[in-house]
Amino acid sequence: MKHNPIDNLTKIIGRLPGLGPRSARRLVLTLLNKKETLMSPLIQALQEAEINVVHCSECGHIDIQNPCHICTDPQREKTKICVVENVADLWALERTSAFNGIYHILGGTLSAIDGRGPEELNIPKLIHRIDTLSVQEVILALNATLEGQTTIHYITECLSSKSIKITGLAHGVPIGGELDYLDDGTIVTAFKARAAI
Amino acid sequence: MKHNPIDNLTKIIGRLPGLGPRSARRLVLTLLNKKETLMSPLIQALQEAEINVVHCSECGHIDIQNPCHICTDPQREKTKICVVENVADLWALERTSAFNGIYHILGGTLSAIDGRGPEELNIPKLIHRIDTLSVQEVILALNATLEGQTTIHYITECLSSKSIKITGLAHGVPIGGELDYLDDGTIVTAFKARAAI
Repeated sequence: MKHNPIDNLTKIIGRLPGLGPRSARRLVLTLLNKKETLMSPLIQALQEAEINVVHCSECGHIDIQNPCHICTDPQREKTKICVVENVADLWALERTSAFNGIYHILGGTLSAIDGRGPEELNIPKLIHRIDTLSVQEVILALNATLEGQTTIHYITECLSSKSIKITGLAHGVPIGGELDYLDDGTIVTAFKARAAI
Repeated sequence: MKHNPIDNLTKIIGRLPGLGPRSARRLVLTLLNKKETLMSPLIQALQEAEINVVHCSECGHIDIQNPCHICTDPQREKTKICVVENVADLWALERTSAFNGIYHILGGTLSAIDGRGPEELNIPKLIHRIDTLSVQEVILALNATLEGQTTIHYITECLSSKSIKITGLAHGVPIGGELDYLDDGTIVTAFKARAAI
């Protein structure tokens, strides 16, 4: 097939995460079959997002305002900062409504394998915010992976001189989890941290 | 989260086939993180495709010209028409370069369950093309499903008065296929149609 807009669009869609050539072709055909109801709204939504969405200079979140609506919300406790790896993790926490403080997005985790050092994480800004906002608790809500735990240790070190509470998410059996399918580490942790019912 | 362009874009992307809320969120974050290298090219490619891509009034293919480049290609044999269900099937055949004739897209198959009757298929145009182009062979390259086979029978009936060759794709063991994983129908068909090696 000679080069044309269809191939070009298929190629670009195929570069998106989680999509391969076959799903890209399927998407292109769906879009071209539904120009009015799907393709036009998609183009409009993409343009609107491209123009209006900015990063919050305080926490690193994405929003249509800077600082973002979480950082500027008077209802939220500014003395509690929840440190997350990325925006997806922030969204996951926000969906639960479990937390009413503010966030700080690291932009990644330390990783020896991928060669990510402390200088690539948004830590100086975190320390600056802790000082200016008189933060009392920092919740390190990072993934329970090797990289996440390494990063937690590093940040704990950085903040050790300050008299603030540093907490992490509890480890244990996930709700609905079956012991037989859990790894040994989780079972040991859950057993050691057992609580009265 | 209040209504904003991010939510709107996520909602629209989540409506695309094969994408759910989670993959939509992931796509939106990737796009917003790569505005220059991914989001802008995507918007441009979508706009270009939206404006330029049209349906071929002859075969039903999509292209930037009407009639499409296959119908107008002087190198291709106009006396052989390959009937396919949709554009994706046409692309699948074109990738193999097995066929040098022209195509005809039905736009679906007969289906009692989904309530699709003959009037929704592009059959009158097919008959018209067979007559005007003095077609000698019609290859019914439809899926080997119940709907595909029903449609093959229906079209064969429609064309029975004409003195043209009507063929279908061969059935048998797929290349690389293992007998143990094949359904009985395929094995029986392949066995009956066995050929000297």
